[in-house]
Amino acid sequence: MKTVSTAKSFGGTQGVYTHTSEVCACDMTFAVFVPPQAKNGKVPVLWYLSGLTCTHANVMEKGEYRRMAAELGLIIVCPDTSPRGDDVADEADNWQFGKGAGFYVDATQEPYAKNYRMYSYITKELPALIEKEFPADMSRQGIFGHSMGGHGAMTIALKHPDTFKSCSAFAPIVEPSTAGWSKGAFERYLGADETNWRAYDACALVKDGKSFPEFLIDQGQADSFLDEGLRPWLFEEAVKGTDIKLTLRMQEGYDHSYYFISTFMDDHLRWHAERLG
Amino acid sequence: MKTVSTAKSFGGTQGVYTHTSEVCACDMTFAVFVPPQAKNGKVPVLWYLSGLTCTHANVMEKGEYRRMAAELGLIIVCPDTSPRGDDVADEADNWQFGKGAGFYVDATQEPYAKNYRMYSYITKELPALIEKEFPADMSRQGIFGHSMGGHGAMTIALKHPDTFKSCSAFAPIVEPSTAGWSKGAFERYLGADETNWRAYDACALVKDGKSFPEFLIDQGQADSFLDEGLRPWLFEEAVKGTDIKLTLRMQEGYDHSYYFISTFMDDHLRWHAERLG
Repeated sequence: MKTVSTAKSFGGTQGVYTHTSEVCACDMTFAVFVPPQAKNGKVPVLWYLSGLTCTHANVMEKGEYRRMAAELGLIIVCPDTSPRGDDVADEADNWQFGKGAGFYVDATQEPYAKNYRMYSYITKELPALIEKEFPADMSRQGIFGHSMGGHGAMTIALKHPDTFKSCSAFAPIVEPSTAGWSKGAFERYLGADETNWRAYDACALVKDGKSFPEFLIDQGQADSFLDEGLRPWLFEEAVKGTDIKLTLRMQEGYDHSYYFISTFMDDHLRWHAERLG
Repeated sequence: MKTVSTAKSFGGTQGVYTHTSEVCACDMTFAVFVPPQAKNGKVPVLWYLSGLTCTHANVMEKGEYRRMAAELGLIIVCPDTSPRGDDVADEADNWQFGKGAGFYVDATQEPYAKNYRMYSYITKELPALIEKEFPADMSRQGIFGHSMGGHGAMTIALKHPDTFKSCSAFAPIVEPSTAGWSKGAFERYLGADETNWRAYDACALVKDGKSFPEFLIDQGQADSFLDEGLRPWLFEEAVKGTDIKLTLRMQEGYDHSYYFISTFMDDHLRWHAERLG
């Protein structure tokens, strides 16, 4: 791991780091905020997965998480959203596929299977690096994210309820198998057989019996992607009759941007801190 | 005035606007945050002047001012740092002069005098527009800024103590007449006669008898520009024996970035709110 930059902020350290990912077969960049409490021992870890077109930097610059993370004593890890580099297969004109649009799946189709393995990267390779390099208590991990990253956080929580003690999302894509901006990517990463898509679809995972104690979702009512891409009511339907508790808050007047995310960031950090102990 | 964008954030509205500036003879862009309290009547106005290379967008994206401004009920106005446009004289390779480096002066030298009139723009033209277009109580104005913008805020407060009721700065250039990264710009905007520079130099203004009740300055001790460019101790020297009260806080480990600014943003907003009533 190489350090790209560090800066003191809110008494902690905001750093940016790179490493060579074996899983994604390329160099990857990520951001980590370490709160001041980490001077006295390991602290809980909260993973933030970003949305389409983003890198690690968007939430680091606009997410406004450091003040509350420093108060609550949380490490915040912000990975990139896809493999990177000139050798990685991509469609430069398509913001819903390829670089910046990894969808947190392990691609099975060529030529994407070589690099687009964000699911394994987020659930295996990067956690091992975080555990090794940072004062992180890996027995207390939470996960959250925005839009495509909300989809990533929810599907990963549903498949790893023993690893993650808390999950929340801002404006998540809850049923990517059927949403216009994700269906095409699923087909090309995972193949035409839609049964293989269900492992990466929060609604399908719940219908197939996966579970997680509770989710917090904030969704802006003025979000231009609400009806076609996000549709949190589908997840509300899916969890009916299950043990999953859903707190879905429709926020009047808010859009899909970091102006929305930052407004409710404190609430989400408190939600996770309460569950991470 | 034209609206470029608006987004709900922390219960208020973050907007970006453009207008044709007569003073700067070009189109200018600025950002305004209107807090939720403005629904019930006019609220105080706090001006944030940005540093070298910045536009209105840097602090809007990274400054983390909206949460506390919404709590305290402050309008935050974030102007650009220079005239803009293809017709504006510039040196594209010089980040300390020209576009992005207006230094809040009224240039007297050709070819800069036509557009580089940021002092008049900030103190006359833009306030008139803000008063006309926003629910702004112009009898309660404060001003603050960062680096070159801290210089701007302090010099403007010293020259307009009746207009501004409060002033603070993050890592300000307190004596631009003698600092390496500002001296060259002063000479080219204002001419070789250094007596004409004193009206835009906080230390010189104090020595020449200008006054303001009190200043809050936060300065990072790990700021790489501290010794050569910023030197807050020169202002500490200048105010000795005057009625000016200075609260200078040297902050251990902090650099010159928005990671530093955002850390102390809440303190500054509270400082202004207490003085704006």
